[in-house]
Amino acid sequence: MSHTAVYTVNVEFGDCDPAGIVWFPNFFRWLDAASRHYFITCGVPRWETTRDSLGIIGTPLVNTQTRFVQSATYGDTLAIHVSVREWRRKSFVQTYEVRRGEALILACEEVRVFAAQREDGPGIRALPVPSEIRALCENFEALA
Amino acid sequence: MSHTAVYTVNVEFGDCDPAGIVWFPNFFRWLDAASRHYFITCGVPRWETTRDSLGIIGTPLVNTQTRFVQSATYGDTLAIHVSVREWRRKSFVQTYEVRRGEALILACEEVRVFAAQREDGPGIRALPVPSEIRALCENFEALA
Amino acid sequence: MSHTAVYTVNVEFGDCDPAGIVWFPNFFRWLDAASRHYFITCGVPRWETTRDSLGIIGTPLVNTQTRFVQSATYGDTLAIHVSVREWRRKSFVQTYEVRRGEALILACEEVRVFAAQREDGPGIRALPVPSEIRALCENFEALA
Amino acid sequence: MSHTAVYTVNVEFGDCDPAGIVWFPNFFRWLDAASRHYFITCGVPRWETTRDSLGIIGTPLVNTQTRFVQSATYGDTLAIHVSVREWRRKSFVQTYEVRRGEALILACEEVRVFAAQREDGPGIRALPVPSEIRALCENFEALA
Repeated sequence: MSHTAVYTVNVEFGDCDPAGIVWFPNFFRWLDAASRHYFITCGVPRWETTRDSLGIIGTPLVNTQTRFVQSATYGDTLAIHVSVREWRRKSFVQTYEVRRGEALILACEEVRVFAAQREDGPGIRALPVPSEIRALCENFEALA
Repeated sequence: MSHTAVYTVNVEFGDCDPAGIVWFPNFFRWLDAASRHYFITCGVPRWETTRDSLGIIGTPLVNTQTRFVQSATYGDTLAIHVSVREWRRKSFVQTYEVRRGEALILACEEVRVFAAQREDGPGIRALPVPSEIRALCENFEALA
Repeated sequence: MSHTAVYTVNVEFGDCDPAGIVWFPNFFRWLDAASRHYFITCGVPRWETTRDSLGIIGTPLVNTQTRFVQSATYGDTLAIHVSVREWRRKSFVQTYEVRRGEALILACEEVRVFAAQREDGPGIRALPVPSEIRALCENFEALA
Repeated sequence: MSHTAVYTVNVEFGDCDPAGIVWFPNFFRWLDAASRHYFITCGVPRWETTRDSLGIIGTPLVNTQTRFVQSATYGDTLAIHVSVREWRRKSFVQTYEVRRGEALILACEEVRVFAAQREDGPGIRALPVPSEIRALCENFEALA
């Protein structure tokens, strides 16, 4: 059984485009925030802490696949349901459903990695999934 | 043979996150601009014109699939190569490659629709692909 | 006595720049949301309603003056205290304090107008401040 | 005589709000890019270089004052004229005019600092204006 966290978004005027609907890059802003929110609800420390202890500077995307079902507009309250579907050795699969009440607005599946600064020059490199973080999430799921 | 337009982006400081790399939602901002740039290079009029003549208020996404290959950072110049892979009756498939010199940064495939305001309430609805717009793009491709 | 509304912001990773602090244009995103929040707390209807009834398409800025006192970073919770300091015939003065706990992060004063679409071409024009909206805010302030 | 650099912006669909005009926080995104562009035109190295050599992690704002004169919309090309009006010991005054052809869209005056990471904890601190950077800009101005 997978733990699902919920991240809430109030859609603002400036999130919308001249067609009066959410401009889609803003959905990705919110999915990114929901991704981090998932880990925080599992008890993973703030990212400046895991940067200092584990060298993690972020959780960048490897790929993302998103299906847009309905539009949203300002004044809407959206609930982003987020979980981790699969842990791999050097990556993890995170899934999202954005809902307005019962209505599905979009569904997304991402592959992300835990990234560290390269030592041999600029740029980033993928770390093995830190066992401390995976354990926190799986323990939380076991309790859920 | 498909016409490919190129949209150029200069990555700015504020496009990057605390890890010092482009925060991924910004890539989607640029892909959206590249999508419109494609149509403009084919001779399609500005969107306020097609709104007045054809009722089009935008070209929202139905789905998108993106593969992130390398990170980018401020000071980089990125070339977004964009084309239309397929015209369907009510949608079209648009593809993108983002490159820094020869290096591939990301590849994306989207399905989009031409959208009009609903007449029976708020929200949008997909229009059949306007034959005028498709003809402009296909004629341009024939010349390319 | 002026009514003060409070709009809460959770600072996300992607709101911060390579220096690890909030990139300042994001503060303006939040001030704009706080501006609308003020009117909503006073009972002013959603903007699509006032667009249909009063022709208002937004409340654009005439000018803004902002003092940045301390930086903020991800994980911070910010409280934006917003009020209307002065009503003029065709504009109003809105003021903001952004706080993290007791600490002042920034202070801002804006002049805004209620805007309608021009009838004689593209662009916008300032409306006289709608008496209905001013009355809702002043009644709310009288009760506060 | 002050050197003026020009930074060009093409306004995109997604930069505009439901009123069909540029949503004002986007102007600040562009002013920030123009600020950096000014230094680059004067021969100041890329920011990762000055971070490594001088400890500079950014040039955050102390205050900003902006006057919005006309709206802009997608399809517009804007020229941002930027210069440094005054060098102070620990800050500098940067001014901007955003123009569409001859028309003035907005005028802005900012006070910024060169910032370093604090040594005694999180947060940033203002550095004295680096003499190397000031000299590059003033030499460039002398030639202009």
